[in-house]
Amino acid sequence: MIKSLLPEQTLRRIPLYHQILSELEQKGKEYVSSAYLANFFRIEDTQVRKDVSLINHRGKPKSGYSVIGLKKAIGDFLGINYENSAILIGAGKLGSALIEYPGLAEYGLKIVGIFDNNPTKIGKAMGSSSILPLESIDRVVNTFNIGIAILTVPKIAAQETCDLAVSQGIKGIWNFAPVRLQVPPDVIVKTENLAVGLAILSHYLKRR
Amino acid sequence: MIKSLLPEQTLRRIPLYHQILSELEQKGKEYVSSAYLANFFRIEDTQVRKDVSLINHRGKPKSGYSVIGLKKAIGDFLGINYENSAILIGAGKLGSALIEYPGLAEYGLKIVGIFDNNPTKIGKAMGSSSILPLESIDRVVNTFNIGIAILTVPKIAAQETCDLAVSQGIKGIWNFAPVRLQVPPDVIVKTENLAVGLAILSHYLKRR
Repeated sequence: MIKSLLPEQTLRRIPLYHQILSELEQKGKEYVSSAYLANFFRIEDTQVRKDVSLINHRGKPKSGYSVIGLKKAIGDFLGINYENSAILIGAGKLGSALIEYPGLAEYGLKIVGIFDNNPTKIGKAMGSSSILPLESIDRVVNTFNIGIAILTVPKIAAQETCDLAVSQGIKGIWNFAPVRLQVPPDVIVKTENLAVGLAILSHYLKRR
Repeated sequence: MIKSLLPEQTLRRIPLYHQILSELEQKGKEYVSSAYLANFFRIEDTQVRKDVSLINHRGKPKSGYSVIGLKKAIGDFLGINYENSAILIGAGKLGSALIEYPGLAEYGLKIVGIFDNNPTKIGKAMGSSSILPLESIDRVVNTFNIGIAILTVPKIAAQETCDLAVSQGIKGIWNFAPVRLQVPPDVIVKTENLAVGLAILSHYLKRR
C-alpha cells in the first residue's frame, strides 16, 4: 500500500468531491456548502471543512465554497488539471474497457501507447491507437516522458510486466491484476482489486 | 455511500486479508502473525488485532492466527463462503472484462444472466452465457432469487437501468458508471469509480 501524506479516507473523498463539483458546475451552481458535500458521504460538515483545509483551500463562511474555485483547487492538488500521460500494457478486454472508460479523460489521463505480447494483436487498432509490441515500451516511455503504466495483464504475468515497466523508468503502476506487486521503493503501485467492492456489497446484503 | 457497521478502513482491509491468507494457504503456511499482516498495510499490529476481533475471531497469542481458520472466519463474515448469484446489465467491453475477471469467482460471485438493450447483441455468447434482452430480467431475477445487479452500462443509461433492476426486486447494485445513483432506502449501491485510483496515483507522483 502507499504511504500517505493525507488520511486515506480524505484522499478517497477528494476525487469524489471533484465529481460532485463538476456536476454542480454543469448545473450552473456557483456555491456549495460543506453540509451539501457532507451529505453524500454521511459524514459531518466539520470533516468536509477539514478535508478542504488539507488541500489549502478556504471557503467563505457565509456563502460556502465557490464551485469553480474548489474544483480547481482539487484539480491542482491531485495533479489532474494538467495532462498525465500513461501507457497501457495488456490489450485484452479490461484494457479495452479502460481505454473507453469516460472517467479517465476527465481526470487528465492520456494513454499514449498500448502494448501486448501477443503477436496476433500487434498492429491492430484499440481506441485511437495501434497495439505495439513490448519491445517498443522503451522508445515510447522515453519519447513521451511517461510516468504511469496501467497493467491490465493476467495475474500470472503481472509481476514480470511490472518489472519490465519499472526497468524502463516507470514510477507509477496502476495495477488491475488481483495480486500484490513487488517494486523498488521509488515506485508507487496502486492496485485495483475489483473484488473488494463485491465483498463489501455482499457483506451489507448478508447483514439484512 | 453505504452506512457502515464497521469502520470503512477495516472493511476495505478485510477482503485483502482474505487474499493474503489464500496466498499463504497455497504456500502451505499454517499460522500468520498480526505483524505479518500489518506490514502489508503499513499499519500497527494492534490495528490488525482490532480488525480481526471485529469479525469475532480470536488468535492464539503465541503462534498467531490459523491461516485456514482466519480465512474461513473472514469468508463467513463477508458472506463469500456461499455462492452469491448476480445478473450483469450492459454487455459491453467492461461487462465482458468483468465476466472474465478472476477475482469474482474467488469471492463466490456467479453471474447467472447477462442483459443488454442492443438488439444486435441479443443471443450472442458472452463467457458461458447468452446475452438476453432487458425484458427477461424479471424472469431470471425471480427464478434464481438474485440479489445483486452489476451495472456496466454507459453513464447516461445508469440511473434508468438501476431503476429497472430495483423494480424487479434487486437489493444490491454494483455500479461501474461514474455517476451517483438514487435508490430507495432498502437498496444498497456500491459504485466503483475507477478514476479515484488514478487520482490517488497522480497525487503521489506529483508530490515527488
